[in-house]
Amino acid sequence: MKGSLLYEGKAKRVYHTDDPEQLILSYKDDATAFNGKKKESFPGKGRLNNLITSKVFQSLHQQHIKTHFIQALNETEQLVYKTDIVPLEVVVRNKAAGSITRRLGISEQTLFQPPILELFYKNDELNDPLINDVHAYHLTGIREQDLTLIKEQALLINEHLSSIFQKAGLELIDFKLEFGFLSDGRLVLSDEISPDTCRLWDLETGTKMDKDVFREGIGSLTDTYERILQRLEESVCAK
Amino acid sequence: MKGSLLYEGKAKRVYHTDDPEQLILSYKDDATAFNGKKKESFPGKGRLNNLITSKVFQSLHQQHIKTHFIQALNETEQLVYKTDIVPLEVVVRNKAAGSITRRLGISEQTLFQPPILELFYKNDELNDPLINDVHAYHLTGIREQDLTLIKEQALLINEHLSSIFQKAGLELIDFKLEFGFLSDGRLVLSDEISPDTCRLWDLETGTKMDKDVFREGIGSLTDTYERILQRLEESVCAK
Ligand SMILES: Nc1ncnc2c1ncn2[C@@H]1O[C@H](COP(=O)(O)OP(=O)(O)O)[C@@H](O)[C@H]1O
Ligand SMILES: Nc1ncnc2c1ncn2[C@@H]1O[C@H](COP(=O)(O)OP(=O)(O)O)[C@@H](O)[C@H]1O
Ligand SMILES: [Mg+2]
Ligand SMILES: [Mg+2]
Repeated sequence: MKGSLLYEGKAKRVYHTDDPEQLILSYKDDATAFNGKKKESFPGKGRLNNLITSKVFQSLHQQHIKTHFIQALNETEQLVYKTDIVPLEVVVRNKAAGSITRRLGISEQTLFQPPILELFYKNDELNDPLINDVHAYHLTGIREQDLTLIKEQALLINEHLSSIFQKAGLELIDFKLEFGFLSDGRLVLSDEISPDTCRLWDLETGTKMDKDVFREGIGSLTDTYERILQRLEESVCAK
Repeated sequence: MKGSLLYEGKAKRVYHTDDPEQLILSYKDDATAFNGKKKESFPGKGRLNNLITSKVFQSLHQQHIKTHFIQALNETEQLVYKTDIVPLEVVVRNKAAGSITRRLGISEQTLFQPPILELFYKNDELNDPLINDVHAYHLTGIREQDLTLIKEQALLINEHLSSIFQKAGLELIDFKLEFGFLSDGRLVLSDEISPDTCRLWDLETGTKMDKDVFREGIGSLTDTYERILQRLEESVCAK
C-alpha cells in the first residue's frame, strides 16, 4: 500500500499510495526550531503528533470543517487526500507570543480581539517571511476569492480549536495552518495541527505545553506532548 | 511667524507657527539610510528636497489630490497644514527594487501589475516592520474605512506621480507616502515626496536617480537631486 517517497520535510515524510489521490504522512521524531537552526530528535514524538493531529482533525470533521484527513493507519502514519498545497503559512493569534512580540513590540499575553491573522510565505530559503494579501496574489497566484475563503476558514477553525483545547484545559494562544486544493478544486485544511504548530498554555497555571518547551529549553518535549494527547483523549471521552 | 520647534526628524525639523493649524517643515541637509546606520550631510540637499516636494505637491493639487501642502516659504522651508500623522509608511511598488527583492526573493525590475502596496509600521526602534491590515488596526487604531481610503489614494497618487515623473524622463519604481488627519477629520497626504522617498530611474538609461546613489555609493547625491529638480521644472514649463 505505501508507495515511494514523494517528499521529506522537517517533521514528516510523504509517501505515495496505490491511489493517486491519497498520500501517507509519516510523522518523524525530529524537532526543529528557529527555521532549522535548533534541531533534535525525540523518540516517540512522531507517534504523539500523529495521534494528536488525528484526534484534532476528527474533532474538526464533527464541526463540518473539510480537511485532507482520512484516517490514522498506525502509531506514526496517517492516510490523507493529496492536495496541491498553497505555499502559505496561515497563522491565527488570540494572544501575543513568540515572533509578533519582538517584531511589533507587543508584550506577551496581549489579547487580540478580534484575533490577528497573518500570512507567511512558505519558503525555507527566505525564512518564511511575513507577507500581505497582495504579495500572496503575486507569489502564489492564489485568487482573491480563495484567499478570502482561507481566511474565513482559519478564523472558524480558530473557534473550534479554541473550544476543543479549552475542554482539555488548554488555552489556544496561536497556531499555524496550511491549506491545499483537492483534485476536484475544493480547498481543504491540510498538513498537521499539533503542539509543534500550536501554542497551548495550561488554562490554570499558564505553563507552556507546546514546542516552546523545546525552543526555550524549559521542559521535556515528549512528556509535554504525551500530556496533551492524554487530555485530548479524556476530554473527548468526557464530553 | 516661525514658532518653537515641535519635532526634529531624520530629514526635517517641524516648527509651530502663529496659526495652531499650520506648521513649517524645514528640510535638513542630512541623509540617512539603513534605518539611520549610514548617515552623511550634503550641503544643498535640504533646498533640493524642499523645492522638489513643493513642485510635486503642487502638481498633485492640479490633479485634485488633497495634501497638507500650503506653499514654499523660502529655499528650505514650506508651510503645511498640521496633521495627526498615521504612523504608517505606505509604500507603492511598480517594479521590484530594494528591500522587497531580498525579502521575497523577487529579482530587481520585476513588473508589478497591479502595483504592490505595502504598509510599514512607522517605528524607528522596531526598524519600521512590514505589517498587514489587521496589524495596522491593532497598532494604530485606524478604522477600516480610513485604511481603505489611504490605499485608494496611494494607488491614485501612484498614477499621477508616474505621469509627472515620466514627463520628466523618469520611471517611478516605488515610493513611500504618509497620511494624516486634519483638525476637521479629513485625511490628507502629508510629509514629503522627494528622491529620498521615491525610487526614480532614468527612462532611457535606467540610471538610478534617487537616494540609492547614496545608499549604494554610486554617485553624487546633490548633483542627482539637482537634475531631478531641473527636469521637473522643465517638464512643468514645457507641458
Ligand atoms: N494533504 C497533503 N498533500 C500534499 N502535501 C501535503 C499534505 N499535507 C501536508 N503536506 C506537505 O507535506 C510536507 C511535509 O510536511 P513537513 O515535514 O511539515 O514539511 P516542512 O518541513 O515543509 O514544514 C509539507 O510540504 C506539507 O506542506
Ligand atoms: N503635516 C504634518 N503635520 C505634522 N507632522 C508632519 C506633517 N508632515 C510630516 N510630518 C512629520 O514630520 C516629521 C519629521 O519628518 P522626518 O524628518 O522625515 O521624520 P522621520 O525621521 O520620522 O522620518 C515626521 O514624523 C513626519 O511624519
Ligand atoms: Mg511543516
Ligand atoms: Mg521621514
